[in-house]
Order: sequence, then structure tokens, then C-alpha cells
Amino acid sequence: MESNNKEYVSDEKLREYFPDLPTGRLDEYRKKASFDWRRMKLVYDDLDCIDLKHRMWKFMENNPVFKHADKSVTLDEERHLAVKRMYSLHNETFLPIEKIVMNPRSYAAETEAMFMYDSSLTVKLSLTFRMCSNVIQGNGRAVHEQILDDLNAGKIGGCFALTEVAHGSNAKGMRTTATYVPEKKQFVIHTPDFEAAKFWVGCLGKCATHAVLYAMLHSKGKNHGLHMFVVPIRDPKTLKPYPGVTVGDIGEKIGLNGIDNGFVMFNNYHVSKDAALDKLGGVDDAGNYRTPFKDPNKRFGASMGILSGGRVHITTISTAYLQKAIVIATRYSAVRRQFGPDDSSEEVPVLEYQQQQIRLLPYLAATYAMRVFCNWFSAAHVTMVINGFAGGDDNAANRGVEMHALSSAVKPVFGWTARDGIQNCREACGGHGYLKAAGLGELRNDNDANCTYEGENSLLLQQTSRWLLNVWANRQKVNPSDFPYGSLAFLVNADGVLKEKCPWKTTRELVDPANLVHMYKWLTAFTLKMTADKADRLKRAGKDEFSTRNETQSYNAVALSVIYGENYILNHFYKTVLEFEDVRCRSVLLKLVSLYGAFILEKHLATLYIGGFLSGEQGVVLREGILELCAGVCPEAVALADTLAPPDFLLKSVLGQSDGEAYKHIQNSVMTYPGSMTRPEWWRDVVYWQNYVHSKL
Amino acid sequence: MESNNKEYVSDEKLREYFPDLPTGRLDEYRKKASFDWRRMKLVYDDLDCIDLKHRMWKFMENNPVFKHADKSVTLDEERHLAVKRMYSLHNETFLPIEKIVMNPRSYAAETEAMFMYDSSLTVKLSLTFRMCSNVIQGNGRAVHEQILDDLNAGKIGGCFALTEVAHGSNAKGMRTTATYVPEKKQFVIHTPDFEAAKFWVGCLGKCATHAVLYAMLHSKGKNHGLHMFVVPIRDPKTLKPYPGVTVGDIGEKIGLNGIDNGFVMFNNYHVSKDAALDKLGGVDDAGNYRTPFKDPNKRFGASMGILSGGRVHITTISTAYLQKAIVIATRYSAVRRQFGPDDSSEEVPVLEYQQQQIRLLPYLAATYAMRVFCNWFSAAHVTMVINGFAGGDDNAANRGVEMHALSSAVKPVFGWTARDGIQNCREACGGHGYLKAAGLGELRNDNDANCTYEGENSLLLQQTSRWLLNVWANRQKVNPSDFPYGSLAFLVNADGVLKEKCPWKTTRELVDPANLVHMYKWLTAFTLKMTADKADRLKRAGKDEFSTRNETQSYNAVALSVIYGENYILNHFYKTVLEFEDVRCRSVLLKLVSLYGAFILEKHLATLYIGGFLSGEQGVVLREGILELCAGVCPEAVALADTLAPPDFLLKSVLGQSDGEAYKHIQNSVMTYPGSMTRPEWWRDVVYWQNYVHSKL
Repeated sequence: MESNNKEYVSDEKLREYFPDLPTGRLDEYRKKASFDWRRMKLVYDDLDCIDLKHRMWKFMENNPVFKHADKSVTLDEERHLAVKRMYSLHNETFLPIEKIVMNPRSYAAETEAMFMYDSSLTVKLSLTFRMCSNVIQGNGRAVHEQILDDLNAGKIGGCFALTEVAHGSNAKGMRTTATYVPEKKQFVIHTPDFEAAKFWVGCLGKCATHAVLYAMLHSKGKNHGLHMFVVPIRDPKTLKPYPGVTVGDIGEKIGLNGIDNGFVMFNNYHVSKDAALDKLGGVDDAGNYRTPFKDPNKRFGASMGILSGGRVHITTISTAYLQKAIVIATRYSAVRRQFGPDDSSEEVPVLEYQQQQIRLLPYLAATYAMRVFCNWFSAAHVTMVINGFAGGDDNAANRGVEMHALSSAVKPVFGWTARDGIQNCREACGGHGYLKAAGLGELRNDNDANCTYEGENSLLLQQTSRWLLNVWANRQKVNPSDFPYGSLAFLVNADGVLKEKCPWKTTRELVDPANLVHMYKWLTAFTLKMTADKADRLKRAGKDEFSTRNETQSYNAVALSVIYGENYILNHFYKTVLEFEDVRCRSVLLKLVSLYGAFILEKHLATLYIGGFLSGEQGVVLREGILELCAGVCPEAVALADTLAPPDFLLKSVLGQSDGEAYKHIQNSVMTYPGSMTRPEWWRDVVYWQNYVHSKL
Repeated sequence: MESNNKEYVSDEKLREYFPDLPTGRLDEYRKKASFDWRRMKLVYDDLDCIDLKHRMWKFMENNPVFKHADKSVTLDEERHLAVKRMYSLHNETFLPIEKIVMNPRSYAAETEAMFMYDSSLTVKLSLTFRMCSNVIQGNGRAVHEQILDDLNAGKIGGCFALTEVAHGSNAKGMRTTATYVPEKKQFVIHTPDFEAAKFWVGCLGKCATHAVLYAMLHSKGKNHGLHMFVVPIRDPKTLKPYPGVTVGDIGEKIGLNGIDNGFVMFNNYHVSKDAALDKLGGVDDAGNYRTPFKDPNKRFGASMGILSGGRVHITTISTAYLQKAIVIATRYSAVRRQFGPDDSSEEVPVLEYQQQQIRLLPYLAATYAMRVFCNWFSAAHVTMVINGFAGGDDNAANRGVEMHALSSAVKPVFGWTARDGIQNCREACGGHGYLKAAGLGELRNDNDANCTYEGENSLLLQQTSRWLLNVWANRQKVNPSDFPYGSLAFLVNADGVLKEKCPWKTTRELVDPANLVHMYKWLTAFTLKMTADKADRLKRAGKDEFSTRNETQSYNAVALSVIYGENYILNHFYKTVLEFEDVRCRSVLLKLVSLYGAFILEKHLATLYIGGFLSGEQGVVLREGILELCAGVCPEAVALADTLAPPDFLLKSVLGQSDGEAYKHIQNSVMTYPGSMTRPEWWRDVVYWQNYVHSKL
């Protein structure tokens, strides 16, 4: 694991980036905090990343294209805005590739900076310029360099066309064909019917000129499986589609509507043989299939490998959403007062209520765990990719496998934690949380996509569990070098740990970070053993491989992968916190480790009893421990939110601004909302409704 | 409890209302079903209700005002459409009051019929015509009859102004004042500042002419607490606000955007003394306060009593949303095929996968439990109100208290079950579930309001738990007449039950409906005892009432009320199923009782171990039982969805239509979406982006 850039950062330097927050209704809580909210940022950021985000946010704040609309815009306007913002950011090149190489952590910082502003812009930027380039670089040849240059210069725009209408996760079932015609040295791309249309392709709806297309390569009457092609879709000078290409927009989605997701069908569309991105396998001029791989499954696996970057990326995205939501809800709960003791005229901030704390504070802790993890994880993935290009990693294969398994587990964990956390924030804000201007609905709707794209969560988790089940069978033979990221450390002496019973009885013991880490070790090993045992039983009862896998999904394999992911995140959080220099910050962070660990463990409480690890009242004591931690974190909560908060311009919520003046911002919002105080043009349809009702028109 | 209308309904009659469904991709599953999907409807509907819904839906389908828009409309258009649809439905008077009296179940049927079409229309109809009328009828005098007539004739439009910007749940903290001026026989209504503005008032944003307003009544220098007034807001002939009234729209929300929620501030606004709805308390001409109540808290309670109808109503609303979602996801999962055994070229419907089943089928069972419950609950509430007007119920006080407690528990349970169920449906539909045309996003966004309006869920649950804790202390003295709806039956021999240990070891035993009902009895009593014991400990340790309540919320009082609500719903479902005549339907319904009961019980599995009721492997066996039930319900799932499904016109989902042709409907949707295949007007901003980027505009 890499660690933060350890250079000392002075208080003065931090103040340059983070001036004092406005005084007001949040002062009371801010004064209660026992740590410096600026310094706390260094547990997950370094100065480089802080500086990058700062410059990007200043640019946005000062650029009229990035001005927030004061009411909802139409779908078409939303697309148009995303395009203008994308090119404006692209043109600035805030993060050239050399900087990523110098500091791999900067990649997640840039992602965070953009997603804090707007999701659609960021996804479009990534698809238009980066994803295609990465794929072409990894799979193309010298002949494709012109395309790379044109992409980078913004002369053409890319998109990534894998998913079909009727096939997403099961890539092997796809039906778009690319048939080689040796006489013409061309491929004929064809879509047999609408169910085989490429669908959901980001940026294809309105903008893309070229697609990285996945199609079944046919040559000499044989299907060689899914291969990649770079295919012209629209004329880059006119944006009109080429003959033989039927391309369109798939319309509105639940969120992310700035992205023009599209579909495309090909009607015997001829493209040059050079369209094939065939470094890892393809046909020669005569149509004979050539590949450096002996096992065709390996070629397929390698060509799909690019997708694991997407899952890593999503950990950063989900974190950014949850981060905004938790800042909004925490600040608002500190200024919203409701009820109080019968003998008091003062009302109490709702953050003081136990039920409000349990809804918010564990997610505040989770946000720290996630931010710490995703910044590291993104850097680890960038480093892996860079080393892959350089060829300097002699443990690359193990690293790749573990990265695949880990990303397939943590992507769902992050997506779901953000989903549940945002929902809790939304409800904890009461009625006003339902205002669009509160910002929580948009975060929920955007995050929702994370649960199904880049692999539907439940399905992804089964990729991890298959790997874990294989590892379990050979657990005696596993070496540390087999898991360079350390995610299999729970297997060390697992059989011994599984015989233990939890010795702790007090709240203090049961929420101690080190003890929680140990309990998670037991839980991970137990769930793996339970799943493996069930699979064995089913096989002995004569079930085939497919049925066995299917019948060990729920409560077993799926839970296993979630727990494996949580176990890693918790361990990584604890380790990072222990290494953090600032004593006052560390003391608060240790409470967050406890709260996060105890909260996620509590979700699996029944399994801890089923396995005999807990017994009697231990579960009640653990729950009491969580409540005590909530009460202990409460005075720090606003300052912890201040650490996580982007500038107000990006938070864009009437409830969560740094001045704590929620009601004033609501007032401003409703009083200036276009048309809010005027009579509707159709007022006569209210007064004279009998006119149109009787005519039944 | 009332029961269904028991008149026999012939197959021919059912076929008249429900013609054969189109044949196609869903046939395979439909053939597997062991029961008649039409007859199954009679477990929750009677012919009266079926006929009412049928007529309303036919009217909508044939009326151009109800034609679905083929793309998103602006906020203003959405409001306009809701208004036109509201008056069109109002004009038809599908359900005159006499019919409700004759068959109280028809009220929920009408609600279901409207919510299946659109939420905003329905909420507007209810607010504009009904809620105000009910309040004025209950609290007004003869002088208000003209207003009632005008409301009913649609000459004026009502709204209900209780919530203020800074106070929602804590009604006693509200700050709008109505000061009596005896010289003029007028009240002066005043809003001291924006935080006291009435806010969130449905229909006030653009349409309402009159408000039922809650304000603190001041007379002779004394504040007599919150009272109701009927106050003119806008001129009914012009919709322009009166001088002294600042009224506006609060802008966009997460959902329900057809409703014009508004705010209003009064600047020393004079209204006649007759504005007071003062049957239960008010001032005489001289300004002396008069009330039939000796205890002023009782007057306050009685004036707030009207609100419990809102919570009852929400059970029907949440059910309608979940019902649509589960139909969509079940049908789509039956036609969506993905992966399969390695040796098979056929792909398997995703409904066959265990993880898909566990995400959907418990919610399918829950939908039946909820539909059965809410139809009964609504009728029970209607009956209570009618008897209240007639004065014929000598157990009215106990009935009112239990209705309050029960509705405060089941409203959150319904809102949250719908929330989680809709989300599971959304994710189970994979990527295509994220399409707006799938319909799931709108259901989620609309249902979201149910979690915080008419009482934020967590807060409401504490109203129930306070009552339960009082009852617990006196449990030896409780009579059946104290709980006319039967919700306290779990207290009978509770102390004996709490000493039991679960004797069942097999899946069959652990998911047996009668056993599940018994386990829920134990769970309800245990959670109540656990909460009461904790409260006692805290009080003995010197905590005051407020702190004790606060510190027994999480894992205790809140869980208690949820469990009390679930216990009632489960018992009611089981009882209704046992009484259902059709043998084949009943056999399937008993599986649904098991699945629903086991699924909700499993969420509290840890507590069952903590209390020592379960031990060892029983939890694993229960989980296995749930999986077996899922596999057993799977062949019935499509037919069960067909029973619940409204006509396709109302379902309005490309994924869930009754013909099972999801991909064809997606194709039709994207191919005909306005502008889907055309170049955007702003295409030059893609091609010539350097023009505007360099100029930094």
C-alpha cells in the first residue's frame, strides 16, 4: 500500500486554501469540536490534491458556463450545458498525464473535483476523451495513432459500445457481428435486430463521432468471439450519421441526464480492416485468425480487463455523492431545532436526538472510511496501470486478479452505502429534504446508476465470491505474494480464529477498533466457510456447477463478498488512522473507526450469533456501544462535515451551506424562483374549469 | 374487523372486467401458475371496488386530457395538466359520499385507481375538495355552510396550511398569530418573519383561493394556542392574491411536481370573526375564550385528530406504488434472460436466479399483505369517521386511540417497505430499470414523500411507542375492549410467552404461518419489555422524562413500533387468507403469508437471538426456509403479478406491459422519442468548441 505524501503542511498553508467559515448558527457546534477541521483533511488528501481541486473549483466558480441554472432546464438544454462545460474543462488540462504519473493520487482528486460539481459533465469528459483512448492504446496498433491524436485534440469524440439491448453482463451472448471480407479488406458490421442494438452507450446519443465497438468477429465462416473495433459513426464536421448507421438517443433516465446515452444499429456497414483493435487477436489479410494467446478465454479476459478501472472509479464517485449528502444533513440537523424538554422554552437541535444521530453519524464515519479508501484505491489502480505499461511489476498477474476481486466487491459496497446513506440524509432532513433545492434527490438519482452500471451489484459480487471460494479450498497454500493488496490476510490462521468465541463483554471492549477488526476477521472467514460448506453439500447431493452457484447466492456468496469488501475497507481505514500524525485528529478518527466498524458489524449481528461467536447479551452491548459512540461523535460532527465539505458553490444546497442559514437560503430560493409569485398563464383553467370539462376535451 | 363483501362472483363476471392477457413471452410462466389470477383479486377487492376502478380507468383511457406525454414536460405544464385532470375527474363524481357510506371499502379503491394513474392529480383532488371540507365540517358552524357548498361546487379551492418553515412536527412551536380585535369583530392574521411562513401547503402555490389556516389565537393579551381559521387567499375570479397576503410557489421537489406546494405570509391581514372554525373552542364577540373542553390539551388533540386520516391514506398510496413496481420487475425478470448452464445454449430467465428471487418475491408477498391490510384499514377508518358523525359508537375513545397508535406505526412501515421494495425492483431490472420509461424512478421519487409527510416516520413511531410503553406498565389490566382493532392481542399471556424458547428446528416448522405468527408475538412482547426495562434503568439512574425518551429511541422504541405494526399486518394477512374460499388461491396465499412473515422476521433475527428465543442453527434454517419459499413462489410469480397489475395504460412502463414484450416497447419508446434521431440544434458547439472555449464565454 502507498501512503499519503508525508510532507508537513503548515497551518498557514491550510488557511490559504481554506479561509475561516462564516460565523452564525453553526458556531455553537464548531466550538465544541476537539480538532482542527483543516488539518483533518490531510488524512485523505495531500497538498497536491488540495491544490488541484482548489484550482478547478475556482475556475468553475469564475466561468459563466458553470453558473448554476436557477430552475430545471429541458433535457436538450441539460445536454447542451454538459457539452459546453466538458470542452471548457478539457481545454484547461488541469491534470496532464505526467502529473498523474508523478502523483497517482491526483487522479481521484480530479474526479472528486468534477463530480462535486456535476456528474454528467464528468462522465462525458471521461467517455469522450479517456476511455476510448485507453482502450485504443491498450489494444490498437501504430495505424491507430492518428485517431488517438484526433481524440486528444477534440477533433473527434469517442464512445464505448459494449452493452446490447438484450445482453449486458453476459458479454458472451452478444450478437452484433463483424464479418471479414478478404476481397475488400473490410469488415461488415451488422446488427441482426433491435435486441442486438448497442444500447446505453454514453455520448452516443447526440455527440460521438467514433465508437469503440464490441462485435463477434466472423471470418471464413467461423465465429472467433467478441472483439473490439473502432468504428466511425458520425461525420466529425457535421455530426450527421454515415449511411448504414442508425443512431439515436435513448431518452430520459432517472438521473445523469446531461449524458446523451444512445443506441446504434448497423445495416451491413463496411469499415476498413484497420478498424480492428487487434493487438491481442484478429485476422490477417487473408482472414486467418491470429492471436498471441493460446487459450481464447485469456484473450477475452484481457480485452475485458479495461473495465475494472470503471469499478475503481465508481468508488470515488459514490463517495463524492455521499460526502455532499452527509455535509448537507449534518449541518442542517445542527441548525434545525424541534421540540425540547417540557420545562424549557429553548428547542433542541435535532442532531441531539438519538434517532437522528444513528441515521447520520455512522454514515459520517463511513464517508471518512470511504474517502480514505477510494483515494488510496484509485492511486493503487493508476499505479498498477502505469506499471503495466512499463512492465516493471513481476507480480502483475496476482495484482490484477486481486484488483479484479477487490474492485468487484467494493464497488457494490460503496454504491449501496452511498444509496442508504443518501436516503438516510434525505429523510433526516424531513420535509425540506424533499425540496429539489436541498440537493439530495439529485444525489440519490445520480448514485442510483452506480448500483447497476459497470456490472449490476449482485452479479459483480458473485465474481468475487467465486474467487474467494477457490482460494478457500487452497487456503493452506496461500502466500502473501498471492494477495499483494493484502485482502486475503483474513485467511491467516482462519481455522484457528473460527474456533474462537468473542471474549468481550463491555461496550468499551466491543467497539474497540482492534477488537472490531478481529471480529471482522472471524466474520469474513465464517461467511466464507459457511458458503463453501453449503456448496459442498449441494455438490454431494448431485447438483451441477451452475445450480450450486445459483443456490449459494443469497445469505451466502453475496453476503460473503460484501463482508470481504467491508473487512478490507475497515482494516485500511484503521491502519491509515493509526499512521496519522496529528494527535487530536487521530483521537477523533479512532472514534470514527469504531463507529464505522461497529455499525457495519451490527448489520451482520445475526450471523455472529448463528456462528456461535457472540452469545447472550453481547449484541445488546454492541448496540449500546454504537449509541455511545454516536453521542461521543455528535459534538465533533459539524467540524467533521466542514472537513468533508466542498465550497458552498459546489454543495449547491439550501440546507447545507457553511453559514448555517438554511431558512434564509430557502427564502432566497423560493422568492427568486422564476414565476414563483406570478399567476400561471393557464389561470382561467382553474376559474373556468367547467368550460373544458363539460366539452370532455 | 370487517370482512370482504362475500357475495359470490362468477368466473364470467370476472372475465368481463379482466379479459385474457396477450399471449407471448410470459405464457411459459403463466402456464406454471396453480391458481386463477382473476379470482385471486377477490382476496382484497369486492365487485363494487372492481367496478369502480374499471369505470375510472376506462374514463381516463378515453379522455384526451389523460393521455400520457411522450416526453417530460416543464414544471408549469405539469401543474397545468394536474389541474385539468383534477377538474375532469371531479366533474364525474365517480364516488359520491352515499356510496362510501354504503361500502366503506370503495374509498381505498378510488384512491388506488387515481394513484395508479398519477400522484399529483390525486393529491390535488384530495386537498382542493376534501381535506378542507372535512376540517370545516368537523370544526365549523352554520355560518360556514356557504363555503362548503362553494368548495364542493368547485367555485373556490381549498388548501391546508399547518406546517411552517421552521416548525413541522412540533405544532405547538408555531408562530403565525390570529389576534382578535373586538371593536371590529375581526382577527388580524400575522406572520412575524419568514421562518413562520406557512410552507409546503399543497395547492397553495398557484391555485388555492382559501386556506384552512392554523394560527395561535391571541385575545385580550393571552395566547390560547393553535386554532383553525378559514382564510381567503386569492380572489376566486382572478386568482390574484388579496392585499396583505404574500403567496408563492416553493418550486421544484424531488417528485409530485404536479402539486403546486406553496408558502404564504400575512402582513396584519384582517379577516372576519367568522373565519374562526371554533366549534371546539374560540372567542366570543367580546374576546372571552370559550371551549367545551375543560383540559385545553384535549381541544388541541381533537383539532389535530383529523390528521390521522392522512396516515391511513398513505398506506393505500405506498401500496399502489409498490404494486406497480413489483408488477414491472416481476414481469421483466420473467422475460429477461441472461446466462445459463455452460452446456446449454438457452439462457435462463433472471427470475430463476436465487438472488433475483430474494430481491423480488418477498416484496411480492409484502404487496399482497399490504393491499389486504390497507383496503381493510381504509374502510375501518371511514367507518370510524362515519360512526363519529353519527355518534353511534360507545367505544369511540378507545377506537380513536388505537387508530392513532396503529396508523402512526403502519404508515412508516408501509412507506419504508415501499421504499425498499421499489429500490429492489429498480436494481433487479438492471440497466434498463434506470430508463425513465421503465417507470421505477418516478415511483421512488413520489413514494419518498410518504416517508416524511404527515409526520416524519421516525417521529411518528415514537407516538406509538409512548402509548405501548404506557400500556405495558398496565398490561395486567388491559381488556379486549381497550383495543377494538385487536392490535394489543400480543399482550395476552405475554409474560408467559416471553419465557418460551422457539421449539422449531426444520424449515417447514420455522416458516409455518401459525408458528411465524407466534414468533412475532414473542418478538413484539420482547421488544416492548426491552424498551420498558431500558427506560426504567435510565429513570432509576436519574434521567428526566425527555432524556429517557430520547435515549430509548434507537434499537428500542423505534424498532418496537415497527414490529408492533408488522405484527398487526402479518396477523391480519393470515386471518384474511384463512377465510378466503378458493382453495387453490388460498394455498398460494398461505405461501405468501409464510414468505412475508419469515422475511420480516429475518430482519430482526439478531434480536431473536439476543432474547434467547432462537439459538444455534435456527437462524440458518429460517433463512433456508425463505429461500425454499422463494423457489416455491417463483412459478406463481407472474400470475401473482397479473392479479396486482393495473391495465397497461396505467402501468406505463416499457418493461412491465402485460404482453411481456419489453424490448419491443423499449424500441418503440426510443424510436419515437421526440428528437431522438435528429441532430441537436447546438451541434456546432460540439464541432467548433474551440470557438467558445478560447473566448472563455
